[in-house]
Amino acid sequence: MRARQFFISTLKEAPADAEVISQKLMLRAGMIRRLAAGIYTWMPMGLRVLAKVEAIVREEMNRAGALELFMPAVQPAELWAESGRWEKYGPELLRFKDRHDRDFVIGPTHEEVITDVVRREIKSYKQLPRHFYQIQTKFRDEIRPRFGVMRGREFLMKDGYSFHATFEDLQREYAVMYETYTRIFTRLGLKFRAVAADNGAIGGTGSHEFHVLADSGEDVIAYCPTSDYAANVELKEVCHAVAGDPSPDGQGTLELCRGIEVGHIFQLRTQYAEALNCNFINEQGQEQPMEMGCYGIGVTRIVGAAIEQGHDERGIIFPSAMAPFDLVIVPMGWNKSEAVRTTAEKLYGELIRAGIDVILDDRDERPGSMLADWELIGIPHRIVIGDRSLKEGRVEYQHRRDSTATPVNLTDITTLVCQRLGG
Amino acid sequence: MRARQFFISTLKEAPADAEVISQKLMLRAGMIRRLAAGIYTWMPMGLRVLAKVEAIVREEMNRAGALELFMPAVQPAELWAESGRWEKYGPELLRFKDRHDRDFVIGPTHEEVITDVVRREIKSYKQLPRHFYQIQTKFRDEIRPRFGVMRGREFLMKDGYSFHATFEDLQREYAVMYETYTRIFTRLGLKFRAVAADNGAIGGTGSHEFHVLADSGEDVIAYCPTSDYAANVELKEVCHAVAGDPSPDGQGTLELCRGIEVGHIFQLRTQYAEALNCNFINEQGQEQPMEMGCYGIGVTRIVGAAIEQGHDERGIIFPSAMAPFDLVIVPMGWNKSEAVRTTAEKLYGELIRAGIDVILDDRDERPGSMLADWELIGIPHRIVIGDRSLKEGRVEYQHRRDSTATPVNLTDITTLVCQRLGG
Repeated sequence: MRARQFFISTLKEAPADAEVISQKLMLRAGMIRRLAAGIYTWMPMGLRVLAKVEAIVREEMNRAGALELFMPAVQPAELWAESGRWEKYGPELLRFKDRHDRDFVIGPTHEEVITDVVRREIKSYKQLPRHFYQIQTKFRDEIRPRFGVMRGREFLMKDGYSFHATFEDLQREYAVMYETYTRIFTRLGLKFRAVAADNGAIGGTGSHEFHVLADSGEDVIAYCPTSDYAANVELKEVCHAVAGDPSPDGQGTLELCRGIEVGHIFQLRTQYAEALNCNFINEQGQEQPMEMGCYGIGVTRIVGAAIEQGHDERGIIFPSAMAPFDLVIVPMGWNKSEAVRTTAEKLYGELIRAGIDVILDDRDERPGSMLADWELIGIPHRIVIGDRSLKEGRVEYQHRRDSTATPVNLTDITTLVCQRLGG
Repeated sequence: MRARQFFISTLKEAPADAEVISQKLMLRAGMIRRLAAGIYTWMPMGLRVLAKVEAIVREEMNRAGALELFMPAVQPAELWAESGRWEKYGPELLRFKDRHDRDFVIGPTHEEVITDVVRREIKSYKQLPRHFYQIQTKFRDEIRPRFGVMRGREFLMKDGYSFHATFEDLQREYAVMYETYTRIFTRLGLKFRAVAADNGAIGGTGSHEFHVLADSGEDVIAYCPTSDYAANVELKEVCHAVAGDPSPDGQGTLELCRGIEVGHIFQLRTQYAEALNCNFINEQGQEQPMEMGCYGIGVTRIVGAAIEQGHDERGIIFPSAMAPFDLVIVPMGWNKSEAVRTTAEKLYGELIRAGIDVILDDRDERPGSMLADWELIGIPHRIVIGDRSLKEGRVEYQHRRDSTATPVNLTDITTLVCQRLGG
């Protein structure tokens, strides 16, 4: 990608109402733009990050044998009446009437819909187990949306639902998902913890939360919902989730909470299956309700959490797996030096052919401003090409975590970068 | 993929309320399941088709230099008031109040949101032109949803919006999009026509519709909206869109209409930019409104349209580019013959290594029922492995369009399939 063909829009200052560092940096880096309270447009730079997260989540869910489908956002109220949640769910549940005056909701979660699908499709133990998941935009009408994409009203979720003939088989799948979530957050390059959790409003027994750890100094994450995934959840402080906090106090003061919930797995057992008559015929020929598990990942929230975990005074430090580009080439004096321009183009071509996701900064702006942009955006690897070092056959390589640049022979740079990116 | 790990759920009969052939076949093939009127779950089999369409649309939009972003589904009413569409739009526009009693809409289209983004981000002719697009679930509260995914209430759209300093530059991009849409529908393997259209409610001048041609005999497509993309559109019959209808009558009788609109490109000119004050400073230092184009593709509708175009009495005939799998291996007597099982597994491995999207039918059901399933689902290439032909070192190959199977030497089958799929 060439910077002039891409859309780069950085800000010197974050808007005054931005509260936490990830929100400030995402706005400054041009990754998101606010449309309304808790509602953001993902700009091209931010969408690239989101797409990388989404791809890893999808790959690992598929690897685990879960099947992707896509359920409607708009759900008829009747199903929510069957499960009892039409009554129980609070004002976070967005309800509306269609033009024929029928009640609908914009689904913040899909237990009812998937249970309705499964009760129609699956009749026998021979068709079990099954695990369906989707990656979908959801809406939850938060009373006070905040923290940018971390507690927005519109957000992207991966939600999965598994169906089983026995509790033992649900436990097997639950363990598979525990491992899958561990793989996902590990591949994303995040420091995280899985902690046992109580189930909140979602019902059932047995549940773990996955928290991204963020000890961001002054930018403390001032909440840790027990069950973000569920409705009517109190904002409890689960400070035992925090690394390096060996003695969680029962009160859970806000200041101690530095874990951001990005995943939640539940053993729902038969609660929804019983409410919606989602039954199957077992090996003995008897009808019984299915055992169910559900498994959520806050895809948009992961981006915010990663930035809470990875940043410095210059901007975002993305893990390699999540960065919008692997590497940026910054030519100094693009329009003044043909040597710089030719070298940059040649290197750009080489790196693309090597399969590296590279952006060439052909904007020809002030060097300081170009470098500041890429540090703000958090691209892991940077190559600066300037006339002076080029005369010695060298370019300057710097990782986003390095404090200084390293001169590297032009002949060695592609090999070096490929090694670093492969490793 | 192995069939037992996937989810296959075919029906002998379509539900009684299914009206058109694509809807009947998608339900029978287990691609979609109805949740409410005009609202469908995309099951794993259907989602694979949708994902293939989406990938081609994305590739070609990126190739044309458009930048993907992701705008919110939920939009504040204020923006719709600015454009005047809060008043003008009919009851198809789903409106609701949030918990703070503020007005919102679920966006059926995003002219207002993108214009709001651009008026904040772009100030100078130097930053133009720009083309942003997204692929997103949209909702339109049709009074009478019908024809399955072809006229549903919830649907997937690609919508793109371009911004220009001059009308000439808008015309240049419009021509690029005309070519891009032509590439997309060609790559999808569809027979289609681009026709000049009037603009309907969306405003502006200059517009083309892209229609998939479907002469499906008894299953005539009984409508051709001029501007499906827009609001308040009358269901006019644009029978001049139909190939082989040299003398369209002014009345446009329903029976003549056999084009299904799947894409629409518009030159909006400055209508939205003027309403929302989306101005830039031109080369002469003067402020003026931007020229705008907008470009829509009905991603979910394409799947329905492709089936209207490609089917026979046995089921769907997908173009290769859209089929849920390239090829199916059907072993006869999976559990009875070790030779069949071993050969099937070996061939399965070989074809996967060759990069072919293959499904192995390991269900061990009745041969007739397995073959009927794959013909219904519309997989282009099929290899049947049976004990009898295997003794002669052969398997049976059949394309979905062939009336009979061809014996092929086992040693030649991978080469033959790779050639057919590559060509």
